[in-house]
Amino acid sequence: MARKAAIIGGGVIGGGWAARFLLNGWDVKVFDPDPEAERKIGEVLANARRAMPGLSDTSMPEEGALSFHSDMAEAVAGAEWIQESVPERLDLKHKVYAGLQAGCDAGAIIGSSTSGFKPSELQEGAARPEQIVVTHPFNPVYLMPLVEVVPSAANGAEIVARAKEILESVGMFPLHVRKEIDAHIADRFLEAVWREALWLVKDGVATTEEIDEAIRMGFGIRWAQMGLFDTYRVAGGEAGMRHFMAQFGPALEWPWTKLMDVPEFTDELVDLIAEQSDAQSGHMTIREMERIRDDNLVSMMRALKAQDWASGAVLNKQDRRLSDAAGMVRRAEDIADASQPIVTQARAVPVDWLDYNGHMTESRYLHAFADASDRLMEIVGCDQDYIASGGSFFTAETHIRHIDEAKLGERIEVRTRVLMAEGKKMHLWHEMYAGERLLATAEHILIHVSLETRRPAPFSPEIAANLAMIAEAQADLPAPEGVGRYVGAPR
Amino acid sequence: MARKAAIIGGGVIGGGWAARFLLNGWDVKVFDPDPEAERKIGEVLANARRAMPGLSDTSMPEEGALSFHSDMAEAVAGAEWIQESVPERLDLKHKVYAGLQAGCDAGAIIGSSTSGFKPSELQEGAARPEQIVVTHPFNPVYLMPLVEVVPSAANGAEIVARAKEILESVGMFPLHVRKEIDAHIADRFLEAVWREALWLVKDGVATTEEIDEAIRMGFGIRWAQMGLFDTYRVAGGEAGMRHFMAQFGPALEWPWTKLMDVPEFTDELVDLIAEQSDAQSGHMTIREMERIRDDNLVSMMRALKAQDWASGAVLNKQDRRLSDAAGMVRRAEDIADASQPIVTQARAVPVDWLDYNGHMTESRYLHAFADASDRLMEIVGCDQDYIASGGSFFTAETHIRHIDEAKLGERIEVRTRVLMAEGKKMHLWHEMYAGERLLATAEHILIHVSLETRRPAPFSPEIAANLAMIAEAQADLPAPEGVGRYVGAPR
Repeated sequence: MARKAAIIGGGVIGGGWAARFLLNGWDVKVFDPDPEAERKIGEVLANARRAMPGLSDTSMPEEGALSFHSDMAEAVAGAEWIQESVPERLDLKHKVYAGLQAGCDAGAIIGSSTSGFKPSELQEGAARPEQIVVTHPFNPVYLMPLVEVVPSAANGAEIVARAKEILESVGMFPLHVRKEIDAHIADRFLEAVWREALWLVKDGVATTEEIDEAIRMGFGIRWAQMGLFDTYRVAGGEAGMRHFMAQFGPALEWPWTKLMDVPEFTDELVDLIAEQSDAQSGHMTIREMERIRDDNLVSMMRALKAQDWASGAVLNKQDRRLSDAAGMVRRAEDIADASQPIVTQARAVPVDWLDYNGHMTESRYLHAFADASDRLMEIVGCDQDYIASGGSFFTAETHIRHIDEAKLGERIEVRTRVLMAEGKKMHLWHEMYAGERLLATAEHILIHVSLETRRPAPFSPEIAANLAMIAEAQADLPAPEGVGRYVGAPR
Repeated sequence: MARKAAIIGGGVIGGGWAARFLLNGWDVKVFDPDPEAERKIGEVLANARRAMPGLSDTSMPEEGALSFHSDMAEAVAGAEWIQESVPERLDLKHKVYAGLQAGCDAGAIIGSSTSGFKPSELQEGAARPEQIVVTHPFNPVYLMPLVEVVPSAANGAEIVARAKEILESVGMFPLHVRKEIDAHIADRFLEAVWREALWLVKDGVATTEEIDEAIRMGFGIRWAQMGLFDTYRVAGGEAGMRHFMAQFGPALEWPWTKLMDVPEFTDELVDLIAEQSDAQSGHMTIREMERIRDDNLVSMMRALKAQDWASGAVLNKQDRRLSDAAGMVRRAEDIADASQPIVTQARAVPVDWLDYNGHMTESRYLHAFADASDRLMEIVGCDQDYIASGGSFFTAETHIRHIDEAKLGERIEVRTRVLMAEGKKMHLWHEMYAGERLLATAEHILIHVSLETRRPAPFSPEIAANLAMIAEAQADLPAPEGVGRYVGAPR
């Protein structure tokens, strides 16, 4: 039988919690007096159903059952987890807990999404303070791993351990905050940045857009993979964290922010931080950390490239610049010698194309060949404008022969022949090289389709003419070695 | 002829600049009195050569020429760009500029990597103040796009425009800081976070590791793609930025950080920020921004998954949990009915698997098939331990037939047959389904290899026995439709 969670208070945060549990197979009962609650949670759920399963490379469980209740006792009956996300008013929260505890199991965990209150404040006057704990999530709750678990002295070790276990089971990263403090940990940093940002806008130094760019083009990407201290540990180099702190410690007294309530920079503080940093990352050398950092940054920026967003959009712009500078052919009329195979790809093997065997993984061979087909399409006239007008090519069949390995950073090139192109069909032959070393061949049939009907349709006269021109010019080349073979045919 | 840059002062930052220019085809001349300069820059270059070409999906230009000079005038002669990254002492910088300007072209741009000084301070007493501008980069300079371009009143518009153009040409994102201020923009935020972090460590609230997790599992990922204001704009929902600010404005007076030097929260400030936010992102609805945000987050976390790092490591752990809960087979002895095809993949189509045609892109079909082959390998005994011991399978040939499309979020499943396995060779047949709708078939030959020699080698007796067991059990199934076909064979 499915495990049961109760969501008290909907909205963006409550809805995100509902999605976390529901999509991990829990039954979810929602209590929210807002008449719009069902619609609001429905909108968050629609986002979550679209995005969250993509985090997983295996199948998610079947969704649990979602129900809405106007009676709080009904919502919490039998629930193992109760998540409270009502507005940030302590009196309201206390009233809600009184209601909850009248109806819920004594063993249930009551987690609060509060940003502002400490658990001891939430627990004041509760029938069973030991079952209330802060579990502070981050928006969007259905994607962000972080959840701050903040107990007070009233909570036993068992409930904290159980809370962390449940949060992990729905894919989250519970961070145990050992000492309760206003705003917990992460929001204190957000608040500090917010305060500084308000100053900068108010003083006319920067606009909101400039501030956002300063964040996402720089330290934002870094902080997605290593935090403040690991980032500085790497920047400090082999000299270590103490050296880094000695260098930047004095900045504490400079007006580098408007926020001047600084701690005293003592030897004890330096030692404390250096020791904690060693405990955190001392098992890696700085050189190792640099490479891990670089691989992470490259992989994430490449991911943003596919979305054409933030640093990824900057990289795409640069690619167009580099590709033009390298003289890559984009139009049929620019082909220097159509009687020879056309260079349709030239690039280096990036870190996210490797696998556990330490070489370019097989699907990235096809990635490069598919990019080569895309470039050939563009050259013959099936470019972005043409595709926007409703025609495109879908690949119907592919035969790849892997001849040799490619390593990280190796420059590869794809050379392309049009073996045949008629009506709706195009028969391509790609060869991939590193220098003159043949890495792989690929034979493809692509079918021209209408993007409206998703069915085969004849290509445009311009495309037909360009394809015919190339196919005829290349007709005198000898037949490619390996064409028309079946898998496993003797070589 | 290659364009010329001079790097004054090596180290991690100067080395990063050298790499930026060099790998973008510029000749680079380095001046640094440090006898270790060549070694230090060489180490940064090694990192850059490994990582930077991976940012690009097209070929980078040939590297320029790198030379080291003990004479500053020689280093800057003919340089179009001169980057100063000497230690943060104003008297030293002034001395360096005097030397530079004695030897460099009057039209050259002198960019300073300074974090701490304003351009007007740098320009004091210079022969040609107008050619000195702050161009403050972020580490690692060869990967991070952000560079703050901070001119003073002494700089003409032309030099700022030219500086930005050159920085863009080497793939960077120049952020024009319109008003000079201590520490420019980004470092002010870093300094605020640093100050708050020092308080938290000093007060024993959190360790460096806990702080780093609070950053990278939460707002760090968000900030890699939208900054502070866009993130809050989305969180505020359709009610907009004013609503968000009304809700969190009062927190300015709460002790949510130790940094209490706050601006006054006036209607004017709220209006200013709301208007700037509209100008920045008002062309998108909140719903659109939510989906862009989610696609970015999923794509980046998937990228970190491949590196098994930070939030990506959390997701990998969750996958193992989900996969076990779903009862995916991992060992030959767990196969319920070996006479039927084995389910080797079950997953949803994630956003980074789509292409411009709005469906799963062809290389991701092979990605899923390759994962299916990996699972089959694991099942028969070629698991991570086996691979670590030096044996593995390389795919030699693949024939894919695309039968139908798969959309975002669609659940797909791969069912696998072992057609033959003998000595060093394994012949697999995969079929991919969405429900009972056949999406594609894939026929593979995989060769068992020694990872040491990279040559074919017989597989272990355990693998041989397991493969034989499956092949025999499945031998009574009819031959798969389409096996042994060549590309383009009539269906």
